[in-house]
Amino acid sequence: MERLQRQIRFLLEVDKLKTIFRRNYLTDGSRNENDAEHSWYFAIAALVLCETARRPIDLLHVLRMALIHDLVEIDAGDTFIYDEAAKRDQAEREERAAQRIFGLLPEEQGEELLALWREFEEGRSPEACYARAIDRLSAVIMNHASGGKAWREHGVSRDRILAINQVADKGAPALWEHIQSIIDDAAARGMIDA
Amino acid sequence: MERLQRQIRFLLEVDKLKTIFRRNYLTDGSRNENDAEHSWYFAIAALVLCETARRPIDLLHVLRMALIHDLVEIDAGDTFIYDEAAKRDQAEREERAAQRIFGLLPEEQGEELLALWREFEEGRSPEACYARAIDRLSAVIMNHASGGKAWREHGVSRDRILAINQVADKGAPALWEHIQSIIDDAAARGMIDA
Repeated sequence: MERLQRQIRFLLEVDKLKTIFRRNYLTDGSRNENDAEHSWYFAIAALVLCETARRPIDLLHVLRMALIHDLVEIDAGDTFIYDEAAKRDQAEREERAAQRIFGLLPEEQGEELLALWREFEEGRSPEACYARAIDRLSAVIMNHASGGKAWREHGVSRDRILAINQVADKGAPALWEHIQSIIDDAAARGMIDA
Repeated sequence: MERLQRQIRFLLEVDKLKTIFRRNYLTDGSRNENDAEHSWYFAIAALVLCETARRPIDLLHVLRMALIHDLVEIDAGDTFIYDEAAKRDQAEREERAAQRIFGLLPEEQGEELLALWREFEEGRSPEACYARAIDRLSAVIMNHASGGKAWREHGVSRDRILAINQVADKGAPALWEHIQSIIDDAAARGMIDA
């Protein structure tokens, strides 16, 4: 029973992910997206688009990654991908958070999820590369749908957007191509500086 | 390319799940939970507790189910599980919604997810039984953590809560046992009518 108690304790703790907000807006632009919604969106996008992965992937592995990839933000907060200053100590803040949060689980289960989180962060396996492509695609389609609200609010240029999102090419070339066409369209519509 | 366009069109549509609210509150009681957050929570709980399933399950199958199980609520709205009147035409409203929403996808992909959604609704496979147990457990632990807010607001009695949640026993006996101990505790603390 102690094992189940720890698992429930972990689940009660991670409910807080619903209160961590991102810079991104919902597609209708009505409000910012929170990390729990984002994690679901990431996972369903990974499910629907899995045929676009560059290399063969284990979809279960990707979904597990998607579901836990942002838990560290409960302690470390959301770091905007275009904010270079905040990114400086991000790894350290997130590593501490990962130790605490995954440490709530039964030991071997916590270690397994911690390793999975690190795998995503390092982006080396086919699954991590594909997951990162999905993470990028979902942010870009949502930003575009909301009229580029988050890009404009933070004065992000087209070159920066391209540079940050190019990582998608490693995981899913067709998605990287699609991302570029969306960014072209966003520039043509004046959502970002062309 | 038409295939990818349909998949992206589907993803833009399902972003609306973030705007459909449930009667349930977050564990801190601060606000109601939306369906996108709930779908994530359902999936991460299914991942963490998969060893409790009564029969051997394919976890990927369960996670896919969790991610899509509430999409119909984009059109049909959330039906409170204790609301017998609203439940009367629920199946019909949700079937129409499923046809429209999964119909946005490339045909064979849409049909696959539609079948998966029906499997969850019918609750016959080991995966669907386990998924329903997780759905029940997550609602109960959140309700308890928030001081029974949703139960009290809707005047739900202990017997009703037990009757509705007993379905968990079919999918995960250890979780059903845990649910009963939480309900006992809720009654002892005056969160519900004992």
